[in-house]
Amino acid sequence: MPRIEIYDTTLRDGSQGEGVNFSLQDKLLITQKLDDLGFDFVEGGYPLSNPKDAEYFQRVRDLDLKHVKVCAFGMTRRRGIDASEDVGMVALRDSLAPVCTVVGKTWDLHVTEVLRVDLEENLAMIRDSVGFLFSEGRRVIYDAEHYFDGYKANPDYALKTIAAAADAGAEIVVLCDTNGGSLPEHVANCVDAARDAISCPVGIHCHNDSDLATANTLAAVEHGAKQVQGTINGIGERCGNVDLVAAVSNLVLKQDYEALADGGVGRLTELSRYVYELANMNFRTNQPFVGSSAFAHKGGMHVHAVNRIAHSYEHLDPALVGNHRRILVSELSGRSNIVAATTRLQLQQDDELMKTILFKVQDLENEGYQFEAAEASFDLLVKKLAGTYEPKFERIHYRVNVETASDTVPVTEATVKLRVDGHLEHVVGEGDGPVNALDSALRKALRPYYPNLSSMQLIDYKVRVINSSEGTAARVRVVIESSDENDEWTTVGVSENVIEASWIALVDSVEYKLFKDDGLMGGDTTAAPALTEEAI
Amino acid sequence: MPRIEIYDTTLRDGSQGEGVNFSLQDKLLITQKLDDLGFDFVEGGYPLSNPKDAEYFQRVRDLDLKHVKVCAFGMTRRRGIDASEDVGMVALRDSLAPVCTVVGKTWDLHVTEVLRVDLEENLAMIRDSVGFLFSEGRRVIYDAEHYFDGYKANPDYALKTIAAAADAGAEIVVLCDTNGGSLPEHVANCVDAARDAISCPVGIHCHNDSDLATANTLAAVEHGAKQVQGTINGIGERCGNVDLVAAVSNLVLKQDYEALADGGVGRLTELSRYVYELANMNFRTNQPFVGSSAFAHKGGMHVHAVNRIAHSYEHLDPALVGNHRRILVSELSGRSNIVAATTRLQLQQDDELMKTILFKVQDLENEGYQFEAAEASFDLLVKKLAGTYEPKFERIHYRVNVETASDTVPVTEATVKLRVDGHLEHVVGEGDGPVNALDSALRKALRPYYPNLSSMQLIDYKVRVINSSEGTAARVRVVIESSDENDEWTTVGVSENVIEASWIALVDSVEYKLFKDDGLMGGDTTAAPALTEEAI
Repeated sequence: MPRIEIYDTTLRDGSQGEGVNFSLQDKLLITQKLDDLGFDFVEGGYPLSNPKDAEYFQRVRDLDLKHVKVCAFGMTRRRGIDASEDVGMVALRDSLAPVCTVVGKTWDLHVTEVLRVDLEENLAMIRDSVGFLFSEGRRVIYDAEHYFDGYKANPDYALKTIAAAADAGAEIVVLCDTNGGSLPEHVANCVDAARDAISCPVGIHCHNDSDLATANTLAAVEHGAKQVQGTINGIGERCGNVDLVAAVSNLVLKQDYEALADGGVGRLTELSRYVYELANMNFRTNQPFVGSSAFAHKGGMHVHAVNRIAHSYEHLDPALVGNHRRILVSELSGRSNIVAATTRLQLQQDDELMKTILFKVQDLENEGYQFEAAEASFDLLVKKLAGTYEPKFERIHYRVNVETASDTVPVTEATVKLRVDGHLEHVVGEGDGPVNALDSALRKALRPYYPNLSSMQLIDYKVRVINSSEGTAARVRVVIESSDENDEWTTVGVSENVIEASWIALVDSVEYKLFKDDGLMGGDTTAAPALTEEAI
Repeated sequence: MPRIEIYDTTLRDGSQGEGVNFSLQDKLLITQKLDDLGFDFVEGGYPLSNPKDAEYFQRVRDLDLKHVKVCAFGMTRRRGIDASEDVGMVALRDSLAPVCTVVGKTWDLHVTEVLRVDLEENLAMIRDSVGFLFSEGRRVIYDAEHYFDGYKANPDYALKTIAAAADAGAEIVVLCDTNGGSLPEHVANCVDAARDAISCPVGIHCHNDSDLATANTLAAVEHGAKQVQGTINGIGERCGNVDLVAAVSNLVLKQDYEALADGGVGRLTELSRYVYELANMNFRTNQPFVGSSAFAHKGGMHVHAVNRIAHSYEHLDPALVGNHRRILVSELSGRSNIVAATTRLQLQQDDELMKTILFKVQDLENEGYQFEAAEASFDLLVKKLAGTYEPKFERIHYRVNVETASDTVPVTEATVKLRVDGHLEHVVGEGDGPVNALDSALRKALRPYYPNLSSMQLIDYKVRVINSSEGTAARVRVVIESSDENDEWTTVGVSENVIEASWIALVDSVEYKLFKDDGLMGGDTTAAPALTEEAI
C-alpha cells in the first residue's frame, strides 16, 4: 500500500488545547523526537503570533534533523495589500522554514462575515499568498479551513478556493474539518470532489468534536488523501485534533499503508508519554494503542482466557506499538491475580491465605485504596498477610511544621522519631514542602542502617481527592513512584490527612526498596515483567 | 428516522474499567438517572459474580422506574448440564430482572480453545440458555461475543451461533466487537450478513481499542442495527466501550434518529458529570460534546470570530447537549479575553492596562499558573493590576503542624495571625488535614469582621504536581472550587510548597467571596454567564 505523509502539528494546533503550554526547549525536544521516529513534517509554530514561536524557527536550524521537514504556519495575506508587504507573509519568509503552511478560507460564510471581504478577493488572497511563498523558493502546503462545512454550503466556491491554491503552487491541499463536526461518509464524498477538482494531491486534517477524528481520517485516506495532519495524543483546541498515534497505528498495522521510518510505529508508546510529560499532562490511561490500560486485563474471566491464548482477547500485539500487557488487581478479577502475586513472592498458595488477601483488598478498595497502579504496595500487603513481613523500623512519632511570615517563602521542617534495629533515632529534616521534608527526615533516620536508600529517589508524586464533595476535609489518595538504578515501583497511601497518606506511601516505598535489595520481593512490578506474556 | 434502543452497561461492562468502582448506592443512583433521561435498558450487573450485584437486583425493584428496563447479565450454561441446573442460569432467573442478557461464544477459536467444548455443544449451550430464560418468561437479549473476529475466522459458524440464539427466543442479537479491533467497513459488512441470516433485529456493542467505537456504532446503525450498547463516558475495560454520550449525540443531533426520552439528549452533559462524580473519576475535559473544553475557545483568532458568528466555529449549539461555550484566558488568546474580564469588572480599557495584564498572565503561566479553570483568581489579578483592589486583611504569619504517634490518627493544627480592619487577630484552628486546618483558622479570624463567610464552602480541592521529574520537591498547583448560596467560583495557587499553594488559592477564594458580596466582582465566573453566547 502507498506511503502516507504524516504531518504533526502538536506544537502549533496542539498548543491551542486547554492547559497545554510548551516551552521553547519542549518544542525543540519534541521536534527531535518526531524526527527520530521518521515523521515527515513538523509544524513548529506561527511565527507572527508570539516571540517564542519566532525564536523556535531560529533555534530549530541547529538541530541535526534526518527526516522531518520543519513547517511554519500562517494565514493568507490581509485584504487589499501586496503579499510581499503583509507582516504574516514576511514572518513566514523570514522564519527560513523550508515548508510554509498557509491556511485560507473555504466557507463563503467565513469570507463574507468573518474576514469581511468579497468572494473574489479571498481567492486572490489565497493565490497571492501561496504564489509569493512559492516564488520565494518554499514548499507550500495549503490548509483549506472549514473545507467540509464550506463544501456543504457552497461546493462550487469551496472547490474554487482549493483550485486557486493548487494553481498558485501548493504541493498539496489539506482539507480541514476545522469544527470537527463531519461524519465519515461526508468526508469521503468531499475528498472525492476535491481530488476531481485539482491537480495536486490532497491531505486531511480532522478535529475530534464528534468523536470521529480517527474514522474521518481513515475514510479520507481510503478515498485517496496522501497526507494526514494531527497531533500526538490528539491534544488541541476543544476536543482536540486527530490523535496521530491512533491514526498511524490503524493505517500501518491494520491497513498496511506505509508511514514513519522503520521501527517508528514500535516507538509510539514512548512518543505518546514523552509528549504528555513535556506538556505536563496526565497520561490518558485508556488511550487506544498506547494507554497504560490499553492492554490491561481485569475481569477474572478474561484474565483466565488471556492466560491461554494471548491474541484471543487483544486486537493486536501490544509490542507492535511499544506497549505491554498488564494483569490488574481488583475485586472483580477473581483469584488469578492474587495467584500471580503469591507466585512472584514465592508464597505457598493455600486457600485460607487467598481468601484473606481477597477480603483485605476489597476492604481497602472500599476505603479508597487502588492497587491497580501500586503493585509494590500490593506485594507488601500480600507479604504482611502471609506473615513473611518483618518491619524495617517502628514509628514512634512524626511532626511536620510549615511556617511563614507575611510574604516570605514558608519554612518547612519535619521531625521523625523511629526505633531502628533496637535504637531510637530522632532526627529533623527540611524541604520545599511538607512531604519533601518528611521524606528527607525519614531517610536521614534510616540511612545509617540502610545505606542503599541513597540510590533511591522519588520520581513522581500524585494526590487525588477521593470524595471531593467535602472540600478539604475529603479523603485523599497519594501515589508515589520511586526508582533506583534498576527498577521503578509505585506505592499508595490513603487518609483524611494528606501528610499521613503521604507517610503511608513513603514508608511502603522505602520498605519495598529494602526488601527488594534483600531479594525478598519479586523485582520491578511497575514495568511488571512478571506479568507480561512471557511469564503467564 | 427510526427509534434506536439505547442499552447502558456502565454498571457492568463499565465497571471493568481500570480504577472504576461503584458502590451499591452508586449503582442505584445511576439507574435512576438513566431512567430520568429515558434510556431503554440498564444492565445492572452480573448476579453470579459478586454479592453486590446480586443485592442490586433486589434493591432496584424498590425504585420507581418509568422507562428503563433492568437487565441481568450472564454467560451461557456450562457444558454438559441442563440449563435449569446451571448456577449462572439460576442466578439470572432468581435476579427477577425482567430482561436477561446472555453472552455466548461466536468465534470458533474461543469455543475450542477457551471454553474447550466442541462446536456443536456451544450451539446447544446458546440454544438451551436462551430457551431456558425465555421459557421462564423473561425477555432475552443475546450478546454475540467476538462476533466480528468470529465472522472473519469462520463466517458460517458465527452465523450459526446467532441463529441458534434467535431461534431459541432472543428478541435481539447484539453483535459485539469485544476486542475493539474492527474497522467501520468490516462492521458494516458483518452487520449486513447477520441481518440476512436471522429473523430478529440486531444490535451493536463496540469497544474503543482502535479509537473507532463511535464510528463503528454509527456504521452498524446505518446498516440496520436497532440497539446500541455502550457506557456513559466510554468507561470500561482497556480503552473502554463506546461512549453513549457521543453515540447518542451523533445519532440524534446529526442523523435524526430518535433516542431517549424528550429532553434526554439535552441532559447528557449533566449525566456525564454525574457518572464521573459517582465513579470518582476526573472529567475528561476534551470529551466530545460534554467536556468542559468541548466548546471552549482559546486562540485569539477564533475568539474574535466566535464573537461574530457563534455557529461558524462550533459544530453544533452546546445547549443541545446541555453544555455551554467558554472563552479561555491564555497567552495565545490575544486581547479579546482580557477585554471580556475588564468589561466584567467595569474597568476602563486603556492600552497600558491591557499590556500590563497580558505580560503578567504570561509570567504567571510560565511559573505554572493556569487561569483557564480559575476565572475568579484571574478577575482578582485584573483588579489588582488595575489598582481597584484593596486587601481585606494582611497576613502576619501562619503555621501548620501535623503530629502523630506510632499508629494514631494525626493531630493537625493551624495558627493564623492577621491584621484585619486595624486589629490583630491570632487564632488557632484544627482539621482533618493541613489545608482543612488552615481554612478553619483563616475563617475563624475573619468571621467576626465578615459574617457572610459562613455561607461559603469549599466544594473541591485539586492538587497537581507541575514538574513531576523532581518528586516531592516539585512545584504544585492547587485549584479550589468554592460556592455559596448563589455562585460557584474557582481559584488557583502555585508554589513549591503545597501548603503555601493552598493558602494562595484559599485567600483568593475568600477575597473573591467578599468582593463579590460587595458587588465589586462580575458575578459567577465558573458557570461563566458573562461568557456565554447571550453575553458576547
